[in-house]
Amino acid sequence: MAKQKQLKLGALLHGVGGGTSMWRHPDARPDASVNFELYKQWIRKAEEGKFDLIFIADGLYITEKSIPHFLNRFEPLTILSALAAVSKNIGLVGTLSTTYSEPFTVARQFASLDMISGGRAGWNIVTSPLEGSALNYGGKEHPEHDKRYEIATEYLEVTRGLWDSWEDDAFVRDKESGVFFDPEKMHTLNHQGKFFSVKGPLNIARSRQGQPVIFQAGSSEVGKNYASKEADAVFSGHETLEEAAEFYRDVKNRAAAFGRNPEEVLIFPGISPIIGSTPEEAERKYQEIAGLVTIENALNYLGRFFEHHDFSQYPLDEPFPDLGDLGKNSFQSGTDKIKKNAREKGLTLRQVALQAATPRSGFIGTPEQVADQIQAWFEEEAADGFMITSAIPTGLEDFVNQVVPILQERGIYRTGYESDTLRGNLGLPVPENRYARKKATAGQGGAK
Amino acid sequence: MAKQKQLKLGALLHGVGGGTSMWRHPDARPDASVNFELYKQWIRKAEEGKFDLIFIADGLYITEKSIPHFLNRFEPLTILSALAAVSKNIGLVGTLSTTYSEPFTVARQFASLDMISGGRAGWNIVTSPLEGSALNYGGKEHPEHDKRYEIATEYLEVTRGLWDSWEDDAFVRDKESGVFFDPEKMHTLNHQGKFFSVKGPLNIARSRQGQPVIFQAGSSEVGKNYASKEADAVFSGHETLEEAAEFYRDVKNRAAAFGRNPEEVLIFPGISPIIGSTPEEAERKYQEIAGLVTIENALNYLGRFFEHHDFSQYPLDEPFPDLGDLGKNSFQSGTDKIKKNAREKGLTLRQVALQAATPRSGFIGTPEQVADQIQAWFEEEAADGFMITSAIPTGLEDFVNQVVPILQERGIYRTGYESDTLRGNLGLPVPENRYARKKATAGQGGAK
Repeated sequence: MAKQKQLKLGALLHGVGGGTSMWRHPDARPDASVNFELYKQWIRKAEEGKFDLIFIADGLYITEKSIPHFLNRFEPLTILSALAAVSKNIGLVGTLSTTYSEPFTVARQFASLDMISGGRAGWNIVTSPLEGSALNYGGKEHPEHDKRYEIATEYLEVTRGLWDSWEDDAFVRDKESGVFFDPEKMHTLNHQGKFFSVKGPLNIARSRQGQPVIFQAGSSEVGKNYASKEADAVFSGHETLEEAAEFYRDVKNRAAAFGRNPEEVLIFPGISPIIGSTPEEAERKYQEIAGLVTIENALNYLGRFFEHHDFSQYPLDEPFPDLGDLGKNSFQSGTDKIKKNAREKGLTLRQVALQAATPRSGFIGTPEQVADQIQAWFEEEAADGFMITSAIPTGLEDFVNQVVPILQERGIYRTGYESDTLRGNLGLPVPENRYARKKATAGQGGAK
Repeated sequence: MAKQKQLKLGALLHGVGGGTSMWRHPDARPDASVNFELYKQWIRKAEEGKFDLIFIADGLYITEKSIPHFLNRFEPLTILSALAAVSKNIGLVGTLSTTYSEPFTVARQFASLDMISGGRAGWNIVTSPLEGSALNYGGKEHPEHDKRYEIATEYLEVTRGLWDSWEDDAFVRDKESGVFFDPEKMHTLNHQGKFFSVKGPLNIARSRQGQPVIFQAGSSEVGKNYASKEADAVFSGHETLEEAAEFYRDVKNRAAAFGRNPEEVLIFPGISPIIGSTPEEAERKYQEIAGLVTIENALNYLGRFFEHHDFSQYPLDEPFPDLGDLGKNSFQSGTDKIKKNAREKGLTLRQVALQAATPRSGFIGTPEQVADQIQAWFEEEAADGFMITSAIPTGLEDFVNQVVPILQERGIYRTGYESDTLRGNLGLPVPENRYARKKATAGQGGAK
């Protein structure tokens, strides 16, 4: 009997939350975004729940209108490395921008995290949607959307090349003969491209999983192509099963068109479950958290997607303003969606803002109801797994304690880790070292 | 009675070692440079020995002639963050180059390490002596020595400015009123300089120690001025007490000339003790490690200081060759010293190379002898503390188990930590936030 395909799970560890007001909740630790003890508790809870990974998001520019979590939070590579030391099996995934960093440093830091954790690192590639980031990095112009992806493509090529600097058996370490490494198995990249010039080799070897896992979250046309071609896993955000299933098919088809095995591109929609012992209790919990958002908070929150646009200049209860191209060069697909939705449903600015600040997911209900939804999305091919975001401070704990056991009983989710590497748990193959592969191919040719 | 001044101690955690051959020693773990379990044991041993700090060195360029530790090792910020999670009181200091990095990222990563560790981070500022580094970062020309320091000066100015983005009481986090922070206590840097343009604010607050501790190791004229003006602590390397004492006076005097309190610039010579139960046993241990170095290793090792110069082209047993200015733009003070020493003592290439590859420190002997030396350097003002480097694989363990108790008995070294921040243990003040200070000053003015 073929083994039932297994659902994957990730947890976004996000301090006081991605919205404006979760820190005000009675159960919230308002210093959560810089509280390492809390992050330790969270990763341990996620590992207790046999999650594939935890995820740390990022951003490179703030203003006084930024949401609380963005103002004062841990940097991804440092917090992931610290969490590596207090966990055993769970993957450690972080966001890092290819627009404002150097590939040699980034390849090295992720490889080092991968080595420290014994093969559990993952990198969520972003291209920095926020224009302001340029102001913290030399003040030059923020590259436009498609060019950012062109940079990201070459960047990843360099990074992967550096990661293969050493074949897996390069380090001989023979005390007797004094041979530390085999120079034939050390490879100098010598990359000279349009955006980057990097010689190599990298000064760290590959980990037990070969290379860190690549995540991506773009959902524009260019973004989807990038993800389908390059990523091992894709984060997405969709409100309905139908939309999610359409995205799922789209990305899998694109991956196949790029000559890839579609099963090796995993799709992770993000969801924010709220769980109650009855549907009414769950609804009450949603209302409680939604009620903490003021209209000022909501306008600021909305503005962030539109290049920090000031929405307080418009009347609140008139139709959502015409913004022209604003937002095109930051969160392109997100802002298009907000505009379209407002236009089609005839929403006012107030409605759009409050909706953006407190999105209402379909995953609100009893543990069984939430498990039903998850199972439906999974079985109807809208998701290979889910990225769980806490909509209320106890979100992760509630999910692990109450929903995970149901998913396990239903046989669609693991009761124990299959592996202690991220690739192993995600069911992704270890990428062969490019130079070892070339030699093997050349060897086959010679044997003919 | 005034408290006896206390000695400070740091441990360089350096994998298979800074030389060519320690990995061949019978007690060595030849994978030490990428073995996280071993790094954990080491930091725990150093913390058992009440060390002020552990230190992770770095480099950004390798060739096949690089020493084993450089080829395949952890990156400083990631390994320090991981070690933060398995330690409580000890400082976490790492090298990072101001020539090949972005101040916003570096300020952030050190601040995040500082927050994760509860105020135990330190940054050893280097300007990248190796020309090859440029090849991994865009391939532009490696800036010359003095310009690298000019860049480093502006870089640190930016970093310190970013670290003060938030006054210590900026985050109000009042759930009732909904006030998360006080905008008057958030500060935008708006730096526009010769080399950097960085707007700010930084997206993380100050830690319990205010700002990470700044270390520096330059010993050229420009380097010494930089250290005396900017650093909280200085790493140095001297063979004799007299030389060390001269350097000590020099830096303290320069610090005073810059208007600083000389007691707030701590001098840490690096030493590599080898301990035996008798002087003969210690000497045997030195000979054992020196005997593992081949002449090929030694020539490669020497070459690294001279811009990867190939010394195998010269006859081994003739006088050290005339190299002209070679080495001036990399390790300026180190290469000057090697040339001068060879010339004055009429050394052959073989002698210079073997001496460089297995330096013989004066700290070889019984635990009492080593403690005597340490005490002499400390009391005769050649050192405020020492950076302990393991010349043999058990170096740190031997030192903690056998020398530390003697130093404690003599009353010159702590038996328990005074603090759980690095500044606290080093006896350095918490730097006041620049904006809070300005307000305090303005307030005084107004009250007159």
